[in-house]
Order: sequence, then C-alpha cells, then structure tokens
Amino acid sequence: MQACFLHKLEGEYIRTMNINIKELKPKITEPKGFFAQGIHCGVKKSKKDLAIIYSKTPALCSAVYTTNVVKAPPLWWCEKLTKNGQKIQAIVVNSGNANACTGERGYNDAVTMAETLSNALNIEKDLVMVTSTGVIGVYLPIEKIKEGIKKSAPLLSDTQEAADNCAEAILTTDTFKKEITIEIDIKGVPVKISGIAKGSGMIHPNMATMLNFITTDINITQEMLDKAFKSNIDDSFNMITVDGETSTNDMAVILANGMAQNPIIDKEDEDFEIFKNALFIVTRELAKDIVKDGEGASKLLECHIKGTKTKNDARILCKAILNSNLVKTAFFGQDANWGRVLSAMGASGVKFNPDSVCIDFKSNKGEISLYKNGLPIEFDEDYALEILKEKEIQILVNMEEGEEQVTGWGCDLSYDYVKINAEYRS
Amino acid sequence: MQACFLHKLEGEYIRTMNINIKELKPKITEPKGFFAQGIHCGVKKSKKDLAIIYSKTPALCSAVYTTNVVKAPPLWWCEKLTKNGQKIQAIVVNSGNANACTGERGYNDAVTMAETLSNALNIEKDLVMVTSTGVIGVYLPIEKIKEGIKKSAPLLSDTQEAADNCAEAILTTDTFKKEITIEIDIKGVPVKISGIAKGSGMIHPNMATMLNFITTDINITQEMLDKAFKSNIDDSFNMITVDGETSTNDMAVILANGMAQNPIIDKEDEDFEIFKNALFIVTRELAKDIVKDGEGASKLLECHIKGTKTKNDARILCKAILNSNLVKTAFFGQDANWGRVLSAMGASGVKFNPDSVCIDFKSNKGEISLYKNGLPIEFDEDYALEILKEKEIQILVNMEEGEEQVTGWGCDLSYDYVKINAEYRS
Repeated sequence: MQACFLHKLEGEYIRTMNINIKELKPKITEPKGFFAQGIHCGVKKSKKDLAIIYSKTPALCSAVYTTNVVKAPPLWWCEKLTKNGQKIQAIVVNSGNANACTGERGYNDAVTMAETLSNALNIEKDLVMVTSTGVIGVYLPIEKIKEGIKKSAPLLSDTQEAADNCAEAILTTDTFKKEITIEIDIKGVPVKISGIAKGSGMIHPNMATMLNFITTDINITQEMLDKAFKSNIDDSFNMITVDGETSTNDMAVILANGMAQNPIIDKEDEDFEIFKNALFIVTRELAKDIVKDGEGASKLLECHIKGTKTKNDARILCKAILNSNLVKTAFFGQDANWGRVLSAMGASGVKFNPDSVCIDFKSNKGEISLYKNGLPIEFDEDYALEILKEKEIQILVNMEEGEEQVTGWGCDLSYDYVKINAEYRS
Repeated sequence: MQACFLHKLEGEYIRTMNINIKELKPKITEPKGFFAQGIHCGVKKSKKDLAIIYSKTPALCSAVYTTNVVKAPPLWWCEKLTKNGQKIQAIVVNSGNANACTGERGYNDAVTMAETLSNALNIEKDLVMVTSTGVIGVYLPIEKIKEGIKKSAPLLSDTQEAADNCAEAILTTDTFKKEITIEIDIKGVPVKISGIAKGSGMIHPNMATMLNFITTDINITQEMLDKAFKSNIDDSFNMITVDGETSTNDMAVILANGMAQNPIIDKEDEDFEIFKNALFIVTRELAKDIVKDGEGASKLLECHIKGTKTKNDARILCKAILNSNLVKTAFFGQDANWGRVLSAMGASGVKFNPDSVCIDFKSNKGEISLYKNGLPIEFDEDYALEILKEKEIQILVNMEEGEEQVTGWGCDLSYDYVKINAEYRS
C-alpha cells in the first residue's frame, strides 16, 4: 500500500504518521454494507437535489453540529437522535432548501422526511438522520421530497454510479465534488473509510453551509469512535474558514457499521491511533477541499502557528490571520504583506511579545523570511512575487513562546467573492 | 443656537439630548488658545505630511490608544506621557510612515520628533505628543521630519487656512477631511469643541489606522475630562468597523486648555452632562465619517441592537453583523438578506432565543420588516430594493430579551475594497 495523495500532505506540521494508507477511487459506498443514491426531485430546477446514504445494518454514529445559535429544524431532529449514542441506519439529505428559520412546520417537515424514508426502507424512523442545505426561510416543497424519497429508496446501490449520484446531490453551488476514500490495515484486515462533503456554495438568500458524511466499515466501540472523530474535528473542520462564520445547518457525521469485522477497537491502542490518524486525513482533505472551493477563492492559504504557550492561543491567532480581510486581499494581490499578518495577530486578543515573532511565507516556489524577532527583514520583491503567484501558500508563524502549534486553512478574498455574494440576484 | 447638522442625527437611538448646540465651520483652532499648521516635509511625494497642534498653555489631556498587542513606537512615548494625567501642550503628527515595527530606533525617532518640536516652541519635551500613520516596517526619514518641524513651528496660527492645512496633513488615502466644530453654552459662557480625524486609508504595506484629535477650551477637571471622553469612546470610535481590526497606531486624544473660562466643571452635574453629550456628538460624527470613507465603501450601515440582557451582548451582536462579509456584500448587492444578519448573530457567541428576534431594514425611503419572532415575513422585493438603494441603511434588530441597546456603524464590502487592498502595487 502507498499513500497516493501524499503530495497533498506537503507542509504537514501537526502530525507525522507512520501508517500505511491506500487511497482508493472516491466512493461513499466503498466501505462494506453501505448503499447510496442521488436523484433530482424538484427542489432545484434540474440538478440533483436528494441524496440517501444507507447501511445494511444499523451503524454506530458520531456527529457534530453547528455552534450557531440559530439551528435549522433538521438539526433539532438529528441532535435528538444522536445525543444518546443511538445507532443510525440511513441519512437523507436535500439540497436547494435549508429548511432553516422555518420553525415548527420546518421541524415537522424534517420528521416527515425521516418517516417517509423509514417506511420505504422498512426501518424505524429513529434510525434516520435528516439534513438540508440551501435557501433559508422558505418552507420545503415537502410533497416533492416525499415523492423523491419513495422513488430513490428502491434505487439504493453500492455501484460507483450510485455513489457519484449521492456525492453530487448534496452539492449546492460547489464547483467540484469533495470526496475521498482510503483503506487501512487493522491487524491484517482491510478497513475502509470514505467521505463526501459539500462546501461553501451560496444560494440566495443564504450563507455557506458545510456538510460532511463519512462511512466506514470499521469495528469499533461507540466510545472510541466518538474519541477518534471528535478529536479530529478541531484540527480539520474547525480549522477552516471562508467567511469566518458558522451556518445554521453545518454538520459532520460518521457512520461505522463494523462490517469489516476487524478485531474490535475498544481502547486507545495502536489500532486506535491508526484509525484516528487515517480519519484525520479524511476529515482534513475534505476540509481543505471545502476551502479550495470557497467562493471566489483563487488561493488556498495554509497558516501554521507554532511556539505558543497554549493550543487555544495558536487557534485564535491562526483564525485571526485567516479571517482578516486585509490579509486575504493582500494574498489575492500577491503581496508579501507581513504587516497585515502581524497586525491581525495583534488585534486577536491573544497577548504575546511582538519582539519574538517570526513570519515566513512559503509555496512550492520557495520560502521567504519577512519578519524576525520584532524587525522587518529586507527581501527580494521579485522572489516574493514568484512565491506568492502559486495557488497554495503557507503562512508560517513562530511565536517562540511555547511548544504548542496548530495548522488552519483559508482562502483569499477576490473580486469574485464580492460578485458571487452581492450580485447573484442580477 | 440651533443644531445645523441634525440631519446627521436621524436614526438616533442611544441618546436623546436636550442641549443647545451650534455647529460652526470646522476649524481645529476654533477653541480659544489653539494654533495649528500642516505642511509637506517629504515623507510623502508631494502631499502634506506633517501636522502640529499647539495650545497657548499646557492643556489637560485624555487619550486612548489601540488595543493591538503590536503598538507603534510613537505610542510608547505618548502612553508614557499620558498615563499619569500629565498636561500636554503640543501634538506632532506625520503621515506617510507609521513608524511601526521599527523597534528601538523607531522609539528614538519618536523622541527626536518631540525634542525637535519642544526646542522650536521652547517648551518641555514631555509636553509634546507624537504620532505617525502610514507605511509599516520602514524607518522614518527623520532628518526630513526634523527640518519640517523646524519649518512649520514658526508658522503655527489660528487662521482657517492653518487649521485646514493641519486637517489635511494627517490624512493618508482618505478621500475627504473628517472634521467638526461645535459651540455649547456652559452657564452663559460659550465653549467650543473641535475635532479632526484620519480614517481608514491604506498605504502599502499597511492596515487602516484611525487618528482623532479633539481640542476644546472648556474649563474642567482632569477627572471629569477623562470621564466624559472615555465614556464616549465605547459608543463612538469603538462602535465603528471597516475591517474588524485595530491597527498598530490607532489613537484618540482630547486637549482641554480651560481658556473659555467657564465656571469649572468638577462634578457630574448638568454642565458635565451637556459637555459629555456634546463631546459624544463630536466623537460620533468623526467616527461615522471614518466609516463613510472606508475603503471602497459605497454605503454607511448603521446597526441598532436593542432588547439584550447586557450591553456587552448588544455590542458583540452589533459588531458580528457589521463585520460579516456575507452581510456586507449583501448590502453592496442591495439585497434584503435578513438570513445573513441572523446567522452572523447566531455565530457571534452570544446566546439568545432566535424565536424572539425581529429584524427590520430602514433608510430614508422607508422601513421593511423581514423577520419577526422566529419566522420570515413576506415582503415586497421592489420596495426592499428601493430602501436598500440608499447610501445610508439602518439594520434594526430587536432581541426582546432585555433592556440594553447599542448602535454601531460599518460599511458594505465592494469590488473597490478588494481593488484598493489587493492591487495598490500595480
């Protein structure tokens, strides 16, 4: 086995992994016992807008939801199901309408979606998660969705085509599918992990929503699944930013049905570490793809903060840089503007000594030191431009005050961002 | 007396004032005993870049400085002077170079500026504040500045021309001068307050810097001056946002030389209230002008939050809305997108019940209710567009959970913002 996507891992700082991973062709139904489908049911004009993921047997489930105070009704339903570690057998997703800010009627619609799918599959409705993405403040065309669910449930399949349909049907204005499938080895047993995501596409009148669905056939306890999944979230989905905002519908969920039949992982041993690290790659690559497809993004920015006293300080500094409009526009302009990076850090609320900070910018074309221990460094503007012309840029910051570090991802702020977000009416 | 600028006060929520205020032609030297000048000394290519404000007698001084961890060396000097309530007699300002991230040499340059002006005016150097705005990370052309100070000190004057020169010399890429002068009546004695500001202009490689200088001839104690000034800062300069960031050089300062000879204000009586409210108008109008001149801003957004349990919650919600790129681009696109306002609030960290929120948008063309108590309201899109086409828009939010309220100001996010901040190299 070899890691075919290792080129993506260049600039890896947080973790070094000594595990064998095989990258497979992306297919959400690659893990044993998973089936999927995606169709057009009429929420959108013509694109696919209804997706189903189904496990042959009820699967362990771990999920995280938006921290936004304004949560969409489908999430009320999902949170109710998953808060007690209950198993999940199916997920139904519609795109084109977020069923958000729709109150009790919105909640009833979400329950109706669960009921409709549970009837079609002949399973309990409490085994069915429901999620929506798209327009806010508009009631779902629930009859169309009911018909769509009834129509697509019999079409559930583990073929590549069905998996592709599913990955496509969760998208809104995403410009490409976000998907990854890998295989790892647990005590000689092949175990697969597959994920699909929908990124920061915008639909009127809406904000960016992030949905992530991960399937795996690993055999693991609920406790260890939660540990592996939730420990990864903070370093992947929670370390990306396009707008600096969470939406009403964000969620990430993993289903583990145990059908790989590996010896069960029930403690934090070596196998657990292998799974956790592999899962981190899945969540991180999906997260990075979401940022790459950020609205109007022309560059992926990877920001690495090291040498802070606490991890939390590193996170705050990293996000302050990646959320700074001044930093984002500077990178769009291919300008080696370390002053904006430093000022964004200074304004973040984290206390630090500016005299111990070092700032470098790096890309495949080279690395340039711009600021070291409180003073600017003279640099070659032409060389800096050559570095910053690349599509993927690293912002490397060393605080020299401690041992903690963190990596986050964001994107630049372009004319197209303004265009997409201001002019989609016209 | 009458308030000639009352049209600016439309949409007033925080304070109602029952005082007589006369608006005068803006002139920083209007209060008795103040002199000023502004010249070109060579930091910039040809525009004015050196300003001096001088009081005939040492004046009481109250000042606030950037909260950015990265502070420019001139601020180290100023903070040292003002932390013990020491009197100030002169302020020297250069534009075109921020003297930031310049370490010990930068600090020595700031002290040299103070020394040079103190020698030219024959006063103690500890009576001279120094501030700079412009490029970051470049040492000052200190010889040019020294020559400029020597040349301009003898030109100090209280004429309109000298005042205009001064207001102009503090600007960077501002598109208009920010200035206001008013007269109030304290026990039959006319008292004047005048202010000038520099806004969010950007110079490579830099971030927005805000400078505010206020002169007044009021007779007041240090304690009452501090109270009046600092209580206003939180509702004016601290409630505006263009980028959501503080810069390394931000400061606001008021000098009060007592030359109006009104009966001294030494307690929180009616006269104190008059002064405080008048000063609030000065600080608020300067603050609003700074936002109006925000880079690429095409609209002034006034956000009013009411009905929160705490004032701090109201501030956080207000800034979350005004700093949201999704909200800002929506207003640039003249889109009645209440969903983005609600989501920005939800992501702010403030806990609230979305079902009790009401959101209205308002301008001179009318007001429209968009969201009420958890559910969207159907609205006339044409009417909404008519309202949102205006240059000044109010976002009115009622949380219905308490008695606190706050007003803040921001601007939209336009193509020009990206252009100015990304393309100034080319």
